[in-house]
Amino acid sequence: KRRGIPEIIFAETKELEDIRKIIKRTLQKSNSVIVSRLKKTDYPKIQTFAKKLKVKVKTGKKSSTLLLFKKPIKFQGGKVGILTAGTSDIGVAEEARLVCEAMNCKCITSYDVGVAGIQRIFPILKEMIEEDVDCIIVAAGMEGALATLVSTLVDIPIIGIPTSVGYGYGEKGIAALASMLQSCSLGLSVVNIDNGIAAGGIAANIANRTIRKKE
Amino acid sequence: KRRGIPEIIFAETKELEDIRKIIKRTLQKSNSVIVSRLKKTDYPKIQTFAKKLKVKVKTGKKSSTLLLFKKPIKFQGGKVGILTAGTSDIGVAEEARLVCEAMNCKCITSYDVGVAGIQRIFPILKEMIEEDVDCIIVAAGMEGALATLVSTLVDIPIIGIPTSVGYGYGEKGIAALASMLQSCSLGLSVVNIDNGIAAGGIAANIANRTIRKKE
Amino acid sequence: KRRGIPEIIFAETKELEDIRKIIKRTLQKSNSVIVSRLKKTDYPKIQTFAKKLKVKVKTGKKSSTLLLFKKPIKFQGGKVGILTAGTSDIGVAEEARLVCEAMNCKCITSYDVGVAGIQRIFPILKEMIEEDVDCIIVAAGMEGALATLVSTLVDIPIIGIPTSVGYGYGEKGIAALASMLQSCSLGLSVVNIDNGIAAGGIAANIANRTIRKKE
Amino acid sequence: KRRGIPEIIFAETKELEDIRKIIKRTLQKSNSVIVSRLKKTDYPKIQTFAKKLKVKVKTGKKSSTLLLFKKPIKFQGGKVGILTAGTSDIGVAEEARLVCEAMNCKCITSYDVGVAGIQRIFPILKEMIEEDVDCIIVAAGMEGALATLVSTLVDIPIIGIPTSVGYGYGEKGIAALASMLQSCSLGLSVVNIDNGIAAGGIAANIANRTIRKKE
Amino acid sequence: KRRGIPEIIFAETKELEDIRKIIKRTLQKSNSVIVSRLKKTDYPKIQTFAKKLKVKVKTGKKSSTLLLFKKPIKFQGGKVGILTAGTSDIGVAEEARLVCEAMNCKCITSYDVGVAGIQRIFPILKEMIEEDVDCIIVAAGMEGALATLVSTLVDIPIIGIPTSVGYGYGEKGIAALASMLQSCSLGLSVVNIDNGIAAGGIAANIANRTIRKKE
Amino acid sequence: KRRGIPEIIFAETKELEDIRKIIKRTLQKSNSVIVSRLKKTDYPKIQTFAKKLKVKVKTGKKSSTLLLFKKPIKFQGGKVGILTAGTSDIGVAEEARLVCEAMNCKCITSYDVGVAGIQRIFPILKEMIEEDVDCIIVAAGMEGALATLVSTLVDIPIIGIPTSVGYGYGEKGIAALASMLQSCSLGLSVVNIDNGIAAGGIAANIANRTIRKKE
Amino acid sequence: KRRGIPEIIFAETKELEDIRKIIKRTLQKSNSVIVSRLKKTDYPKIQTFAKKLKVKVKTGKKSSTLLLFKKPIKFQGGKVGILTAGTSDIGVAEEARLVCEAMNCKCITSYDVGVAGIQRIFPILKEMIEEDVDCIIVAAGMEGALATLVSTLVDIPIIGIPTSVGYGYGEKGIAALASMLQSCSLGLSVVNIDNGIAAGGIAANIANRTIRKKE
Amino acid sequence: KRRGIPEIIFAETKELEDIRKIIKRTLQKSNSVIVSRLKKTDYPKIQTFAKKLKVKVKTGKKSSTLLLFKKPIKFQGGKVGILTAGTSDIGVAEEARLVCEAMNCKCITSYDVGVAGIQRIFPILKEMIEEDVDCIIVAAGMEGALATLVSTLVDIPIIGIPTSVGYGYGEKGIAALASMLQSCSLGLSVVNIDNGIAAGGIAANIANRTIRKKE
Ligand SMILES: Nc1ncnc2c1ncn2[C@@H]1O[C@H](COP(=O)(O)O)[C@@H](O)[C@H]1O
Ligand SMILES: Nc1ncnc2c1ncn2[C@@H]1O[C@H](COP(=O)(O)O)[C@@H](O)[C@H]1O
Ligand SMILES: Nc1ncnc2c1ncn2[C@@H]1O[C@H](COP(=O)(O)O)[C@@H](O)[C@H]1O
Ligand SMILES: Nc1ncnc2c1ncn2[C@@H]1O[C@H](COP(=O)(O)O)[C@@H](O)[C@H]1O
Ligand SMILES: [Mg+2]
Ligand SMILES: [Mg+2]
Ligand SMILES: [Mg+2]
Ligand SMILES: [Mg+2]
Ligand SMILES: [Mg+2]
Ligand SMILES: [Mg+2]
Ligand SMILES: [Mg+2]
Ligand SMILES: [Mg+2]
Repeated sequence: KRRGIPEIIFAETKELEDIRKIIKRTLQKSNSVIVSRLKKTDYPKIQTFAKKLKVKVKTGKKSSTLLLFKKPIKFQGGKVGILTAGTSDIGVAEEARLVCEAMNCKCITSYDVGVAGIQRIFPILKEMIEEDVDCIIVAAGMEGALATLVSTLVDIPIIGIPTSVGYGYGEKGIAALASMLQSCSLGLSVVNIDNGIAAGGIAANIANRTIRKKE
Repeated sequence: KRRGIPEIIFAETKELEDIRKIIKRTLQKSNSVIVSRLKKTDYPKIQTFAKKLKVKVKTGKKSSTLLLFKKPIKFQGGKVGILTAGTSDIGVAEEARLVCEAMNCKCITSYDVGVAGIQRIFPILKEMIEEDVDCIIVAAGMEGALATLVSTLVDIPIIGIPTSVGYGYGEKGIAALASMLQSCSLGLSVVNIDNGIAAGGIAANIANRTIRKKE
Repeated sequence: KRRGIPEIIFAETKELEDIRKIIKRTLQKSNSVIVSRLKKTDYPKIQTFAKKLKVKVKTGKKSSTLLLFKKPIKFQGGKVGILTAGTSDIGVAEEARLVCEAMNCKCITSYDVGVAGIQRIFPILKEMIEEDVDCIIVAAGMEGALATLVSTLVDIPIIGIPTSVGYGYGEKGIAALASMLQSCSLGLSVVNIDNGIAAGGIAANIANRTIRKKE
Repeated sequence: KRRGIPEIIFAETKELEDIRKIIKRTLQKSNSVIVSRLKKTDYPKIQTFAKKLKVKVKTGKKSSTLLLFKKPIKFQGGKVGILTAGTSDIGVAEEARLVCEAMNCKCITSYDVGVAGIQRIFPILKEMIEEDVDCIIVAAGMEGALATLVSTLVDIPIIGIPTSVGYGYGEKGIAALASMLQSCSLGLSVVNIDNGIAAGGIAANIANRTIRKKE
Repeated sequence: KRRGIPEIIFAETKELEDIRKIIKRTLQKSNSVIVSRLKKTDYPKIQTFAKKLKVKVKTGKKSSTLLLFKKPIKFQGGKVGILTAGTSDIGVAEEARLVCEAMNCKCITSYDVGVAGIQRIFPILKEMIEEDVDCIIVAAGMEGALATLVSTLVDIPIIGIPTSVGYGYGEKGIAALASMLQSCSLGLSVVNIDNGIAAGGIAANIANRTIRKKE
Repeated sequence: KRRGIPEIIFAETKELEDIRKIIKRTLQKSNSVIVSRLKKTDYPKIQTFAKKLKVKVKTGKKSSTLLLFKKPIKFQGGKVGILTAGTSDIGVAEEARLVCEAMNCKCITSYDVGVAGIQRIFPILKEMIEEDVDCIIVAAGMEGALATLVSTLVDIPIIGIPTSVGYGYGEKGIAALASMLQSCSLGLSVVNIDNGIAAGGIAANIANRTIRKKE
Repeated sequence: KRRGIPEIIFAETKELEDIRKIIKRTLQKSNSVIVSRLKKTDYPKIQTFAKKLKVKVKTGKKSSTLLLFKKPIKFQGGKVGILTAGTSDIGVAEEARLVCEAMNCKCITSYDVGVAGIQRIFPILKEMIEEDVDCIIVAAGMEGALATLVSTLVDIPIIGIPTSVGYGYGEKGIAALASMLQSCSLGLSVVNIDNGIAAGGIAANIANRTIRKKE
Repeated sequence: KRRGIPEIIFAETKELEDIRKIIKRTLQKSNSVIVSRLKKTDYPKIQTFAKKLKVKVKTGKKSSTLLLFKKPIKFQGGKVGILTAGTSDIGVAEEARLVCEAMNCKCITSYDVGVAGIQRIFPILKEMIEEDVDCIIVAAGMEGALATLVSTLVDIPIIGIPTSVGYGYGEKGIAALASMLQSCSLGLSVVNIDNGIAAGGIAANIANRTIRKKE
């Protein structure tokens, strides 16, 4: 049995009623469930539904994702750093945070770091190194250069999330994806555009592994 | 200073003479250097050149990559599993292995696993779990389903390498890349098509981190 | 004359009034007609219209397709299995079912099979083999791996329908299409993204042929 | 166990020596093996190698594929029609034929049918109907219209193979693939560009199924 | 001075007020103006506006295009045939008709010809040949095979308009465009997807030239 | 029967021996045949072969196309102007010329017109207007602006041929194709990239029509 | 410190409340701020907000961009010419103007120049030359030929902005981008589709440099 | 007359003999000519040819471009900085240098700067600022991040040249192009992939303008 991987419900292509049913069914066999890419109007309705079910909810800033859980989720030692290049990337980053937390990790976040003011990145990375994070997630849109930059500066595994921010040629995250995949800096791997779920999943996996070995 | 990350020379767009010069210059300041994507005809010439320089060489099966080093590289405890779907993916997998070994890790490899005979995958994964690998690299071309499959079966972090094997729509690794990025299984992140270097770099990073924490 | 192929009205780019006219005109010369890709708001209106015309209607779960017919359609022996990877693929699968039924076949369906729990697929396939289906339709989005998987497990002809479920690189069914076309497993052919109509058409053709030969 | 599906060796990305080894290993456990996409220069060498192994060989016209087998392969009743639009599509069509024959089917072929002279297609289809083929494979490049045309004329299942013939926009089979997938005619499904292997596999599957049921 | 070419206002990216101004300004220096790709809600408003300006209006069936003119436009002998594959292509075809009529030509139209029932095309083409049309416009979506088919049957110049009808791979007219460009039949040239304006312009140019020479 | 359309042999994907056979077979039933996209080394061999067959040959400057014919082809009055933007487009333009001549037209050519020196275009167009050409073919690579420019200056039908000249984004004729299709100038239609055959075919069709009407 | 580069807020992916906060925060440390790609409904709200903040506002015609500033911005001598091909490009051009003005430049604008009436372009360019502009920005959609044309006529540096005007193949600015990048005329460089901000930034940079040197 | 813009011969699609002729013809009316994208084997032949013509030649390191000139080209004050990320970008950078020098500018070059060692970039930029360059060209392949980085650090106009270095998704310069176009840093505009000619042309234009104004 794979431990620590929560159930994910991909809400975008589902009716509200179906989402409710799947939540209910899922919480019967597991302690937590994540609902991702909820329509704006469904978001509060699922929060209300959670109340009715008497399960707890964690939300993310500017995010379309919710974490529902029955018993408190214990922190087990794994730590993940999460950075965003701009404020538009925060929703995706928060999605990753919710997955990490559902998987018993603690997150150190720093949003809106940017490439424009490179000097701002040094104290942030310093803090993450001191916190001894096991993995850093970098969410960035447009040309996505922040992920490359961070991975040239530390030897911590980096997970890049290209975000769909931007317009014109390379829009919808395509430029950021291409540029992260082409990055000539070692130590960076990538998940799909806007896929905070996948980034959180592998980051927590990495962090939890470190912990398990230490035990 | 980032530790353990070897210098990589990207040989594809360079003249033999330039490659030699860069190797020499690099080995003056570091113990090892990796030369990747060497032309077929340059491969043996760089081996000969290494001899003349009196540095040691590690080669990879069916690979266009060489690892040159001065003092023996010590194993420090990190372990990486490497799988390929077919025999055509071996060159890329070996490139990843050389990077991992240059970064002080040990590799457990199993090539030509395939999706066709799913049952073959269970004993292989069992062995890797017993060896307690910290990360598994999966190189697969065509539709790249092996990476998805493996990541549904274990909770070890998986690094997928789409390979440029295949023809027709989705050729040159595009189908495998798309399918790994779209994978609905948690625990998988991806590097660029045929980029064994990048996969080895992040895998070794993950493995070495585990070790460091254990210390 | 080609037998058993029902008329299809592609409603997406048509006005309600036109759809009504074409239905009427078509039912004058044939027993049944399928209306596909109806706008959400037109769906009930066409059902009402059918009532007024005194023709029977079959609907599909979560589907935008309707089957209208005058005299009952007889089952003639052909059997088709229909699988979906997730609940989001059901609408497309149901569209295929309606076509098969309009073409005198019986369908054995199993929705939301997934790749995550591979073990779940064995009893389903076993049942389909026992029912002696002549063809299996597999609808799957995201990375579409289920179609490959199924075709490695049985020697029944498989028709893959990539669905437009997913986001990021390879979205809109492109990853699923590419991965089904690249599949290294024999016995799989493909129709266009979300095209349940085409899948139903060829599957029923295959099933009906078997029957005709048996006669 | 899946019956009748031969082993396929994808030779394009393999060294001659490896191909020889895999042939040998494969023929130890099965009666036949297909080697596809052989380099021009490797083609006669594998024929010679087959002689040395004392196994029989079937070749295809203008094809890069070989069928090697130990005991004669028996015809079991399944029949497949194979059409090409032009002479440039013959190599791919022959690849499909070899797979069908390896899977115990008989093939009725008609190459260079074209769309330009539509009237030429009627007697050919008439013959195939009289031969009672269970499936028709249509290989066509450029705009690939022949597959659409044939599928409007018969109610036999059609497998379209887009071929990589053509130049300019839509070259490399992309126009033919797109046009076959978009075809508004029922009864057509598609395999990847130039993939005679996949087409042969599903066509023979369909034909063999018919036979089995008749038994 | 280029004769017979009317002014075209591309309305899609313009505000209603701007469109009105440009119409007014244009009609001061020329007898007619065409407004294309009007928003649904702007369509009647421009008709009302024309009334107020006391200029005449010609509309197209299912079209977003209007022809406004002051003095009656005289027929000068040029004739253009216009065909559509389906009813969804009519709007685009009508746009072409309005341009042809603004350019003093007469149009013989036949909509919803289809490829499915090839026999229906013969009487239509016969009529067009008897009417002695100088050019035939063929509007077709999905796989766009009708344009190829028609151009194999007559030696009249054909202008193909791929339309944005269809879904899945090759949607938005891409498959139809690719297939018309790849067509192996001589006598066919192409305008951009849904561009009835361009098709009408060149068709009328061809027809008018014929007339001029005859004079 | 379609008159004046010569047989075309697409040589690129054919063996020399096959090309010879098809030429022979074709010349038995028609007076002329065009062989296009001959490999450089096959070009003189087909010329020699023509001599042996005692048929006449017309070649094109920098072209891969040959026109073979038995009896002299008579000029019947149709005239076609042919322009190229640069010297790299001449081969494609000459291919179009051969088709026009095979179809009984006369060509007025002017190669290497360019956009850089716009003033050079005026005397050329003036000459073509005086010669009373019925159609102008414009072959242009890179950004293909010449076709747009010409079509804004005359009211003669223009056939644009995007050529595969250029590199970087939009290479292989893609930028020229897109820009010709997007051209906001009326009177321009397009054939596929490098397809001089198709351009010649429709241009001669247009020219011949004019003549026929005049008769 | 980089001088003259204003802060830009990319509003498209931000909530109104966030935009307000960032404006406020930015104006605390700098004299001006540009807000680009505001939603239609947010546009007036930010104007109102500016009033409340007691800062001045400059708007652009048909533009989604606003310039907010505290103290008047002084003209320092740099001059930029701005052209558009059509009226649909004006919004983007105005965005560039606002950036130039924020960066202390003066703009000479001429909108709706077109390619159709080439003669119209000469007096406009003459005026710009007499005004001694340091750089010319050309915004053009569809096939974007105006940028090429202008750069062949003057030796002033040209910045091309492809705009997302157009439909069909090459839509969303892709044809204009490709054609500007492929332009065979020297003196032209390009920014991303619809990116008036970037064009204004580099144009003003060029103009300001000229001034600084003159000092 | 546009001053200072040299004639460019695009050699890639031309025969050696044609190149020679065009060089000769061009040098009759102008002092210099640039030949770009020469085949490797033609490179020395054109140098020899230049000798025979008694004109001088400037070559570029690793470049396929040559500058031929009759009278010495005078430096007129314009200065351009040229950077490359890696050694593989040098050929393209040198092409730009030759154009700048042909256009009377002086170049300060620094090749193989990289992003990996960011600190290395500061002294280089400092030198360029002190030299008071009017424009900086940045050539970079793979993810092209160097252009973004440089443009965040200085307020000198930057011209980015994406180079075709790299492999996998985003190869052939596509990732670098997309990332430079998406760059969220002001002051950067772009030319086509590998187009050192275009970069040199606009950079020299910018530099020369500055000079002219100073006069
Ligand atoms: N376990 C799975 N394996 C493969 N694909 C899946 C799986 N679960 C869901 N999918 C795909 O993911 C999409 C969403 O699934 P669902 O959330 O169940 O609607 C569907 O298109 C499925 O094809
Ligand atoms: N008459 C035709 N109708 C449709 N496609 C054709 C026709 N002739 C040839 N083709 C296609 O054009 C390509 C070249 O044909 P061929 O010249 O006969 O080798 C092949 O891929 C054929 O599929
Ligand atoms: N005469 C023209 N020449 C070139 N492009 C034009 C011309 N007129 C309009 N355009 C382009 O076509 C689009 C629509 O123009 P307009 O209708 O004037 O808004 C704009 O993006 C323009 O760039
Ligand atoms: N440190 C770097 N930072 C960014 N890009 C680089 C770096 N080094 C090399 N590149 C790019 O990677 C490609 C190969 O570089 P090189 O191996 O130095 O030839 C070139 O196109 C460079 O643009
Ligand atoms: Mg920011
Ligand atoms: Mg295998
Ligand atoms: Mg599911
Ligand atoms: Mg043929
Ligand atoms: Mg129809
Ligand atoms: Mg020229
Ligand atoms: Mg205009
Ligand atoms: Mg370097």
